[in-house]
Amino acid sequence: MSLVVQKYGGSSVSDAAAIKRVAQRIAETKKAGNDVVVAVSAMGDTTDELLDLAHEVSDGNHARELDMLLTAGERISMALLAMAIRDQGVGAQSFTGSQAGVITSEHHGKARIIDVTPGRVVKAIEEGDVAIVAGFQGVSVDTKNITTLGRGGSDTTAVAIAAALGADVCEIYTDVDGVFTADPRIVPTARRLERVTYEEMLELAASGAKVLMPRCVEYARRYDVPIHVRSSFSGKEGTWVTADTDKGDTMEEPIIAGVAHDRSEAKITVIGIPDVPGKAARLFEAVAGADVNVDMIVQNVSAHATGLTDISFTLPQSEGAAAIAAIEADKAEIGHAEVRYDDEIGKVSLVGAGMRSSTGISARFFGALRDAGVNIEMISTSDIRISVVTRAEQLDAAVQAVHTAFGLDSSDGEAVVYGGSGR
Amino acid sequence: MSLVVQKYGGSSVSDAAAIKRVAQRIAETKKAGNDVVVAVSAMGDTTDELLDLAHEVSDGNHARELDMLLTAGERISMALLAMAIRDQGVGAQSFTGSQAGVITSEHHGKARIIDVTPGRVVKAIEEGDVAIVAGFQGVSVDTKNITTLGRGGSDTTAVAIAAALGADVCEIYTDVDGVFTADPRIVPTARRLERVTYEEMLELAASGAKVLMPRCVEYARRYDVPIHVRSSFSGKEGTWVTADTDKGDTMEEPIIAGVAHDRSEAKITVIGIPDVPGKAARLFEAVAGADVNVDMIVQNVSAHATGLTDISFTLPQSEGAAAIAAIEADKAEIGHAEVRYDDEIGKVSLVGAGMRSSTGISARFFGALRDAGVNIEMISTSDIRISVVTRAEQLDAAVQAVHTAFGLDSSDGEAVVYGGSGR
Repeated sequence: MSLVVQKYGGSSVSDAAAIKRVAQRIAETKKAGNDVVVAVSAMGDTTDELLDLAHEVSDGNHARELDMLLTAGERISMALLAMAIRDQGVGAQSFTGSQAGVITSEHHGKARIIDVTPGRVVKAIEEGDVAIVAGFQGVSVDTKNITTLGRGGSDTTAVAIAAALGADVCEIYTDVDGVFTADPRIVPTARRLERVTYEEMLELAASGAKVLMPRCVEYARRYDVPIHVRSSFSGKEGTWVTADTDKGDTMEEPIIAGVAHDRSEAKITVIGIPDVPGKAARLFEAVAGADVNVDMIVQNVSAHATGLTDISFTLPQSEGAAAIAAIEADKAEIGHAEVRYDDEIGKVSLVGAGMRSSTGISARFFGALRDAGVNIEMISTSDIRISVVTRAEQLDAAVQAVHTAFGLDSSDGEAVVYGGSGR
Repeated sequence: MSLVVQKYGGSSVSDAAAIKRVAQRIAETKKAGNDVVVAVSAMGDTTDELLDLAHEVSDGNHARELDMLLTAGERISMALLAMAIRDQGVGAQSFTGSQAGVITSEHHGKARIIDVTPGRVVKAIEEGDVAIVAGFQGVSVDTKNITTLGRGGSDTTAVAIAAALGADVCEIYTDVDGVFTADPRIVPTARRLERVTYEEMLELAASGAKVLMPRCVEYARRYDVPIHVRSSFSGKEGTWVTADTDKGDTMEEPIIAGVAHDRSEAKITVIGIPDVPGKAARLFEAVAGADVNVDMIVQNVSAHATGLTDISFTLPQSEGAAAIAAIEADKAEIGHAEVRYDDEIGKVSLVGAGMRSSTGISARFFGALRDAGVNIEMISTSDIRISVVTRAEQLDAAVQAVHTAFGLDSSDGEAVVYGGSGR
């Protein structure tokens, strides 16, 4: 008998029929002899509808009350799901984040999980029931106010509950069959990965793969919770996200996990900054002060002895206006001449834990882009990732070229292992 | 400075514009120097929509989960209301029933309030904020499950919070201007009552007056909480519901508070019951076993020495089918010949605390009905009420005739005081 935590997102419980389908799957898992805990999101568009309602009433900043409002969404879905499970002849009890012991920081809308004390969940399991836990929500440790966890919150709830219960697996149900070597809409030959490490999944998620949020993967890595990403429609085996050595059944892991892309970033170039110490720091202090998340940074060398330099960085498009305003507000201290904004960019990233021990990866990566006629604007790397910024209209071609060059196309069978000397 | 508890029902917060209007009234009360606690219902049709959703998912009996579901309704309205109040420059915090310390029995859907421990509400008041409390909901003392209070629940929440806080007044905002001497849709000359006693309001409510539920009035009477029933639209002074002597500013209270009517009942007549001891008891045991609320009971005398008798009783129409089924199921033991069901009845009731000390009330009551040509089918009385059952189509005429006979029409000025010898 296993303890299985399952997470269902909003699209899996979008209406009554979908809820009944999910309930059947949960009941089957229970009847197969497992203990089952479920984390569930709000139904379909409920959260957006509640946000619309809030905007009708107020454009003010009422973070505590907004969290109170939004948490009604999971309350509805979890109660309906519990009813549908009970109709399958399986006991079920739903619990709010607070009732399930999801203790968070006070940061409304973006709360961090501090602790999970799932006494009532454990009791429900001991009573033979399925426990349904509201995703995305918790209760603040200090004020006892209701909080929400922000983006990726329900996945994080599931992983956190799984960690606290010592679950055997955290199954994340979604609308795709798992994690793929690339987005199948761009690369039709992309293959489903049977297994990917936490580190690789983190890099893929941070590079634009949308199937899991980095935060949930970080949590799983910290507490070593095996995640199984799978389809709530097909019921097929999906992708396991685990530690490097955990449950590995092949001696040699493929070097490359996949190719991720991201179309949601923009590039800001700050031109004519005096090339003296402290100016770059001043620039990024201004940006950080506006709560902007900077991704890649490139500083051009002052090639012509002008005493001036240019700095480019990428950031989410949604934070572009705030960043520019912050930079211009500090213009006197930064001393730059001009700020340029460009949201016609794309980012392609190659991720693989095997990069650490393999060589020639970079050469092949850049060669593939060159052969495809893709121009590279910025580069960044980690020990298991290479990312480049391209023109937005060249992004698809870049993803396809890299995917093919590393033997990831499904017709090629297993990804090949390269030798060589450094990258 | 007073402590004011205000209650707003679903129609007062039916959409964003209504919520903003209510928020303005609350903010004005606060700015006038009062401490304010608000109990609020779910917006407009939210509860019905959630019930529809539940029926789409399941027709089963999932009382715990249904309560979890329905309590999402007040969560939405109270959070939105708190936002709108904050936009008026007044601090506001919303609290679920559980957070506000509304401790109830475990009876899902019909929970009784056992205790109120409003520590967080008090803290919010001390912080200078308006506290918004979800109406209709609480948390069970034993299991910590979320409960709902059933019909009239939000009014009861308001009164219970007011009692626990020792509030100076509990203002119940509704869509009418107060309690009237009769339903103005039937009696256009009906007058608003400035003041009515708990006992009178209880009898009026139990006799069909819909402005307050008996349960909420009972609670107010037990803890001596002054209720002020008033319109959320007009802002005019409404009707005060208080103890007999409390705040009385006239030496002689009017005898009659008003005329109530009820069109929601039915009459069941059980014919040919053996006229021996225990048969009536057996009949009503059967009915009680089906959880039916019996109102009036009449047993006809066995006039013709047949050894058989007939028993009639009234009950809510909605419980008719259950009652008939229960009686027929026990037919062997009750021994009756036939059951007749009649939902074409109406009930008119005259209520007034002054009946206790006045005489001639009954004679005038029956005289008025006789003069109006209204036939009387059943009679019941308490020390401050007379009720009769009539044909449904004669009900309006009966209400009008009684209203006029007791000088309640607005053109008559104050209700007159009758003398005489007993009724």
